[in-house]
Amino acid sequence: MAQAIDEFDLIARHFAPLARNMPGAMGLLDDAAVLRPSEGCEFVISADAIVAGVHFPETALPDEISRRALRVNLSDIAAKGAVPIGYTLTLQLPPDVDDDWLSGFAGGLAADQETFGLGLLGGDTTKTPGPLTLSVNIFGQTPENKTIKRSGARDSDGVFVTGTIGDACLGLALETAGFVVEGAEDRRLLIDRFRRPQPRVSLGPKLVGIASAAADVSDGLVADLGHICRASNLNAEINLEDVPLSDSARRAVTDRQSLHLNLLAGGDDYEIVFTAPLTARDQLKQVARETGVPITRIGRMAVRDTAVPPVVVLDASGEQLEVRDGGYRHFKREKPG
Amino acid sequence: MAQAIDEFDLIARHFAPLARNMPGAMGLLDDAAVLRPSEGCEFVISADAIVAGVHFPETALPDEISRRALRVNLSDIAAKGAVPIGYTLTLQLPPDVDDDWLSGFAGGLAADQETFGLGLLGGDTTKTPGPLTLSVNIFGQTPENKTIKRSGARDSDGVFVTGTIGDACLGLALETAGFVVEGAEDRRLLIDRFRRPQPRVSLGPKLVGIASAAADVSDGLVADLGHICRASNLNAEINLEDVPLSDSARRAVTDRQSLHLNLLAGGDDYEIVFTAPLTARDQLKQVARETGVPITRIGRMAVRDTAVPPVVVLDASGEQLEVRDGGYRHFKREKPG
Repeated sequence: MAQAIDEFDLIARHFAPLARNMPGAMGLLDDAAVLRPSEGCEFVISADAIVAGVHFPETALPDEISRRALRVNLSDIAAKGAVPIGYTLTLQLPPDVDDDWLSGFAGGLAADQETFGLGLLGGDTTKTPGPLTLSVNIFGQTPENKTIKRSGARDSDGVFVTGTIGDACLGLALETAGFVVEGAEDRRLLIDRFRRPQPRVSLGPKLVGIASAAADVSDGLVADLGHICRASNLNAEINLEDVPLSDSARRAVTDRQSLHLNLLAGGDDYEIVFTAPLTARDQLKQVARETGVPITRIGRMAVRDTAVPPVVVLDASGEQLEVRDGGYRHFKREKPG
Repeated sequence: MAQAIDEFDLIARHFAPLARNMPGAMGLLDDAAVLRPSEGCEFVISADAIVAGVHFPETALPDEISRRALRVNLSDIAAKGAVPIGYTLTLQLPPDVDDDWLSGFAGGLAADQETFGLGLLGGDTTKTPGPLTLSVNIFGQTPENKTIKRSGARDSDGVFVTGTIGDACLGLALETAGFVVEGAEDRRLLIDRFRRPQPRVSLGPKLVGIASAAADVSDGLVADLGHICRASNLNAEINLEDVPLSDSARRAVTDRQSLHLNLLAGGDDYEIVFTAPLTARDQLKQVARETGVPITRIGRMAVRDTAVPPVVVLDASGEQLEVRDGGYRHFKREKPG
């Protein structure tokens, strides 16, 4: 059994240093934090919780866990065009958590705060007899009335996506489902994309004033574009061949269209899918150049048609393909028996 | 086994109606919410989580659980002088939660939103194999730079408390520790004070500009006043005889000083302990009149003296009394064997 941890001591040693650059956190000596947006700005707030054994493996390292909690939330507000400011953390700790674990956990947060430019505002630490659970609320800001919503897409807008799709889904399948790839370096790269999400924090705010709607790709490309469709009351058509894959992912799925297709339902990409008028093409090229992140057009928005799914995926010959939920499951090795 | 609950359906049916009056919640159709304080105001943010079997009994009713989560957070920001605006909720549901339970849970929130004047901004619902866990982040606002902090107390300020102290601690002891009182009505009143915290939402904002420091009484009067002492680098002296008890609590502890003393460590009062200059006496009388909530002076702040505890409790003859942690435990009936 780990030694009992005193909450005040725990806060003072592990968490108060994370609040040092946030005057509104009042050194975590208060019950509350004080915060206001910069002149002419509004807050964008997102809340996501992750649970051991549900959202990450029980064996995950403490700094991988804390970074994942922070990054999935950073990804949410990046897709809204917001610049991160701070976050709160409520943490439910099972009895076997010890001081070393907490050091690793806080160390992961400290490193990511540095990378992404935000600080801890406050929170709450309690015991739980159940799995480790963490809940993060993140605060970013955008110029007033400029937050990019899911609901702003227009008919004939182009559909775009940042980076590459499907790497994390393959990484998860490699780690947990017995999926196999040939190259050791491909294996490493794909697993890393699952373990260490890279939220598009620099790119997101540059889409303000360009993108008409956006969402981060956490549930899967088709599902998240579907959220935009529903909120905007439109349909979308995307071309499978245009969905950008990394070289590692391309080698992993070889030329099997069915595997390729599953990557669009995989999730955990933490890229941004967005819509923009086609006239924004030059501005988007500029954003890609400035951030070093590729932006690829994968389709277009269309009027609402309830006879087909909100997101239709087409093959090279224009035939409609069927995408099923939970892409990564299709990479599982068949179980004997 | 309960039927599997679809997250989107769950949000649409139970939670989207709670966000109806919050335009920034975007109908819960987005990943994020948008919010800005009123002109000239700042946000006060507090985050608290509660876990079944740790912070409330596993047998608690769903609307008692949701109200508790909201009210403990409302109490935090009331003590800072903030007017509530909205909240986010992350909810980890064990497998046995069904639709009826969710209706009760959301019904409790709907009723309290009405009572306290706030709305749901967003959140996240996930499964857990462990106990039901909920995390609330609450957002209130105060005029800029007017938030009442723990750190603002000054030497010779009076120490004041709202309402009565110790009822909830006695209620918990009655429910769970075999403590007994004579009158059925006293028993009911005390248990109700534990089960349904009454955060001082109307009173808190009226202390802005009057109180120099404040905290809500959740850990216990002595502990929470101790937080003010540490943040303000002062000591406090309070008089046991001046700490206000309800008639029910007075009958329960009869004239036993040791029991009376334990109420100061009990917690879950959700009253406000605050400091103010003695010249504010008339203003405080006015606040008490306007809100119908008694405000009682119980002591004074003094210069920091590390030779004694931060909060010294005196009896009627000026003798120092010893307060131990976890007041309610002293009301437990001795276990046989």
